Parts: sequence; C-alpha cells; structure tokens
Amino acid sequence: MKQLINKVENIVEEQISGMALAHPELQYNAHPRYLIGPSSSEKVALISGGGSGHEPLHIGFIGQGMLTAACPGEIFTSPTPDQMYECAKAVNNQAGILFLIKNYTGDVLNFETAVELLHSDGIAVGSVLIDDDVAVKDSIYTAGRRGVAATVLVEKIVGAAAQRGYSLTQCEILARRVNNAARSFGVALSACTVPAAGKPSFILEDDIVEFGVGIHGEPGIERKAYTDLDSLIEQMFAEIKDCPEYTRILQQWDRETGQWLKNPVTIEPFVANEQYIVLVNGFGGTPESQLYGAYAKLTECCAQANFKIARQLVGNYCTALNMQGLSITLLKADAEILALWDDPVNTPALRWGC
Amino acid sequence: MKQLINKVENIVEEQISGMALAHPELQYNAHPRYLIGPSSSEKVALISGGGSGHEPLHIGFIGQGMLTAACPGEIFTSPTPDQMYECAKAVNNQAGILFLIKNYTGDVLNFETAVELLHSDGIAVGSVLIDDDVAVKDSIYTAGRRGVAATVLVEKIVGAAAQRGYSLTQCEILARRVNNAARSFGVALSACTVPAAGKPSFILEDDIVEFGVGIHGEPGIERKAYTDLDSLIEQMFAEIKDCPEYTRILQQWDRETGQWLKNPVTIEPFVANEQYIVLVNGFGGTPESQLYGAYAKLTECCAQANFKIARQLVGNYCTALNMQGLSITLLKADAEILALWDDPVNTPALRWGC
Repeated sequence: MKQLINKVENIVEEQISGMALAHPELQYNAHPRYLIGPSSSEKVALISGGGSGHEPLHIGFIGQGMLTAACPGEIFTSPTPDQMYECAKAVNNQAGILFLIKNYTGDVLNFETAVELLHSDGIAVGSVLIDDDVAVKDSIYTAGRRGVAATVLVEKIVGAAAQRGYSLTQCEILARRVNNAARSFGVALSACTVPAAGKPSFILEDDIVEFGVGIHGEPGIERKAYTDLDSLIEQMFAEIKDCPEYTRILQQWDRETGQWLKNPVTIEPFVANEQYIVLVNGFGGTPESQLYGAYAKLTECCAQANFKIARQLVGNYCTALNMQGLSITLLKADAEILALWDDPVNTPALRWGC
Repeated sequence: MKQLINKVENIVEEQISGMALAHPELQYNAHPRYLIGPSSSEKVALISGGGSGHEPLHIGFIGQGMLTAACPGEIFTSPTPDQMYECAKAVNNQAGILFLIKNYTGDVLNFETAVELLHSDGIAVGSVLIDDDVAVKDSIYTAGRRGVAATVLVEKIVGAAAQRGYSLTQCEILARRVNNAARSFGVALSACTVPAAGKPSFILEDDIVEFGVGIHGEPGIERKAYTDLDSLIEQMFAEIKDCPEYTRILQQWDRETGQWLKNPVTIEPFVANEQYIVLVNGFGGTPESQLYGAYAKLTECCAQANFKIARQLVGNYCTALNMQGLSITLLKADAEILALWDDPVNTPALRWGC
C-alpha cells in the first residue's frame, strides 16, 4: 500500500524535521530526539511523548499554554529514557518537570527510568499516567486502561495551569483529577497501515467495525455489525455513560522519598446536570465533515442524558496514522477546569485567545 | 465501503448542522443553505461556496479576517443560485458583495446567475474566479483550469483586506492578483469514496498514482509509477515551477454596465529570489505526519530553485473526502500579500493573532 514516505528507517526523522521546518518557533534536537517550544520561563515544564503516528499529538501541542516539550518515539514505539532525560535537563528550571504519560507498558517503563535518573540528579520531577479508554482493561500494549484522546485535554488544561504559575504538586494533582474525570471510547472502520508493514494491520468486512479499538489499531471489545452513524454514536455514548465506577491502582512517584507508590483511585461517576467538555476525535483517515455528522448525533445523546456540553472540539487530534474511524471523549468539568480550558493557547494544532 | 454517515440524502444537512452546533458563533440557515460568521460590520462581504466534501473549505474559513459567509452545495455539487442570492442579501451592507468562485462549470453558472439577480436588485456585487491548478486545462468538471487549494490563500488574503477596509474594487483586483500569482498541483495515492456511490471512484494499483488529480478525484495528466515521496515531490515541484506562462480568458463582471467581459490574463512568471507562500495540503486520507515529510522535501526543492519560502502552511485545508494524497500550492507574494497573510484570522480552521 502506497504511502508518502521514503525509506522506512528514516520516516520519523523526515517527518519531525519537516514539522520543525514548518514551525520554526520549535527547537528541534535530533539526538536524542525532542522538540522544545518557545521560552520556558519560570513555570513548571510539561513534557509528554510517546510513539509517533498519533500526530498532531504530542508535538503539535507544544507552545504557550500547553506542552513545554515533547519526545517522539518511532512509529507506535515508546521514546527511549535518554530522550525524556535529556529533554527534561534542557528545559529544567526551579519550578520542576511534570511528565504526562499515556498508559502503555513501554512508555511507562521508559518514563519511569527517566524519572529516577532526574531524581538522582536532584531535579524535581513528577509523572502522571493517563488512562482514559473505557473500552478494555489490559490490551496488547497495556496493563490497565489505555491512554488515548483525553491526553489532549489533560495537556491543554494542565498546560494552562502551568502557564498561570501552578506549582509542580498543584499540576500533578490537577492532571490526575482531569484524567480521573475523563472517559474515551474509539471505533475503527478500517485499519491503519503501519509503514514498516506496508499493508493494513487487519481487514474488516464491509459491515463490521472494531468496537473499542485502540489508537494503534489494537483490538477493542468486539467486532460488531455496523449499520449507520447514529446507532454507532449511541452505542459509543452508552459505553462512556454507563461505564461502571471502578478502582484503579495507579503508580505515583513520591518526590519526598524517591519511591513509587501504588495508590488506589476510583474513577469519577458521570451524572446528569453536570458540565462536560466533549472531544470528537478523528483517527486520521476519516473526512472532517463526517466527524461533524458524528458530533451532531452526540449532542442529541448528551441532551437525552442531561449531560450539558460546556465546550467542544471536533477534528483530528489523537490519530492512528490513516485509520478510518473516530473516538469520543467526555470530560466532566468544574469551573476551574473550564476556566483553564478557555485560557489562551498557541501551538501548531490548537490555538485560541493568542 | 463503510462511512460515518446515515442516509445518503441527509449527509450534508447532518454534517453542516453538526458544524454549526460545534461553532455556535456561526449562524446557520438551512433553507436555502448558508452559514454566516459573527458581525459583518461595514466591510466588503466575502462569500464563497461550492460542493461539499472539501472541508474545512469553505465553511471552516468563515470568521474575522476571512470569509463573511459560505454556501455549501451537496457533495461535489455546486450550490444553487438561490443559496448565493439569499446569503448575499442577508449579509449585504453598503460596502458590497464579493463572490470567490472555484472554476468549475456548475459553480460558475450558478454564481453568475446570483450575480445577475443581485445586480437587478441594485446590490453592488463582484466575482472572482480561482483557477490555480496547473495540472490540466479543461477537465470533467471544468472549462479552463480548475480552482483548488489556492482558494484557501485567496480567502485568507482578501479576507484580511476586507477587514482592513479595502473597497469592493480593491478586493476584486487583489483577489485576481493573488489567483494569478498562485499555482497548485495534486496527486492521489487512492481514490475518495463518494457517499452516494459507496465505493472508491477508481482503483489505483499499488505502485501507481494519479498525477495531477483534481479535488473530486477527477483525472490528472497521467497515471504514473510511484517510487517514493522525494521523487514525487520533485516531480510535483517541477510541474509548478516550469509551468509555461500562458494566457487565460477570464470572465469578469463589469459592475458599471452589468455585463460579463472576457479579459485575457497572462499568469505571472515564477522566478528565483522571489518570496513564496507555500501550502502543503492533504486531501483528507493522508496522515498529517506524512504531509510534514512532504514539506521537508519541498523546502529542499525550493532552496535549489532559489525560491524563498516566506510563509508556510501544512495540513488538511482543501480536501477530497477521504482521498489519500496531497497538493502543493505556491503563491508568489509581495510585501502587501505577506502583510495581509500575517493579519489576524479567527475561523474554525485557521486562526492566529486573535
């Protein structure tokens, strides 16, 4: 299957260097690979990263009011610890470093190593795992719930908080709170083509979708018959709304003791008459117009459940190469979260108020 | 082939209403169908429109510093004259109306009818045809060159001019000048799926591209062997750079006499040491990361030709549903054009400085 690439082994290099050329406000370090936004001043430095192939996540979200820097790995492959470590040292200031990590086993291990190295250097560093995907517990790439499109919301909201001068501890608490109030669910209509493989990862018959798919095309809950958009959105919304409350054991870094603590967290209930930030996210191969059709139906589902849509975002933000399909994310939002959402942001892929 | 739609006959309605729900700053009129941005004040009203399926073009470009309003037709089908006519009457003020029209036979005929109706009503109205595609002369949908992604640049630049208070005549002259200094060339790796057809419009073998494709998947110059991204970008750049100067006969509306005049226009030569605005545009089914890889190569081509890239834009702006592929647009830009480009813009799909 044709793709707009040259040699498979240089894909990420050619793409990231093109991104840096198109956005000269980003400073690109090739070895180890990371990108840094304009001026970090005295605020907490927010760093994210993960496998490439989900663009604009994360590199498109570097800039004022969002990420300080990002570390892109190879396609669907975690960045290495030296990327996070060197990147953190490059942006370090007195306010400390916060890593925002999508919950995939490789990412978790490598970010943990970077945390421990930075701690040994006497640098204040925290880390928050994002695990918003309510579709499956444990998956090919993950122990626990997968981290998907809510990452965009966490990066925006905590980025605004850092910009306002929240401390490292305040940013950590906020990031965990936002993650804990966010739920996502994805569906694939067709598979993505990983460049090294050169062909779609799987084949879905013409009337079948992968229900609960992950952002690498990994399996969801089931392969399910597809009739039309409206029924699909109803089914996805039901999975998010009716997801039972559950307790997760999340690993947290205790900066005082330099230890990893395992803390139980109960996810927040979703109830009527609360305000929600809604993200309809395309996986890369779906026309934008169809995402708007999905949003139209989603507003009906929310109205029926008395979920008040306070803010909304529709587009390709957390993709899976050229996969056809979409995810829906709902974030239960209080006044603080909404105010931070509305704060100015100036990044390649998300920009307002600047 | 599965798509995120319900009944084919309601697609545009469900998608545009979703767009309007997600962007409540846009005022949506369903019958006849048009969308109007916030406040038109006393500036020239810029209206565009055309078949749907090219989103975010045009509805995503309504707002401060760009379009005043847009009229979406059915998928790949011109809007009807009553859409442009009623829309123009709704936004009309003393400064006049300028229609920006992509050069497709259906659009031209219907916009012409609207121009004549408005003229009969005593409303000052101008129209500018956009025909930037250097790939083919005459095509399935077009007499003359097709209007493609340079439309985004014309809408941005003339939108800024209208915002600054340029008169209708000044906006017309500027729009013709920008169009005349812009060239585009597109390539498809795979066909789009028109919802009513339900299957890809054509099949390209695994090593073949449609070279010079249009934004409806209509044929280009030839079906050509594909080896890799770099060679493809070199070939596309050569088509743009080496396009021979030629004279077009463009139909213009003479507001004094209420007549259509046929004026010969010679397209501007592209030469070294000039400044260019560059757009790498995805057709909807190509991962954003691959567009950045294309941009990296394009910067090399421009450097070799001594074309100075003054500004750049990379992303999905003028799409063809889910077609895989991209187009390249170069616009030779003087100081006035660059200053207008940099002016603030605040629309759903293009936003800076606001």
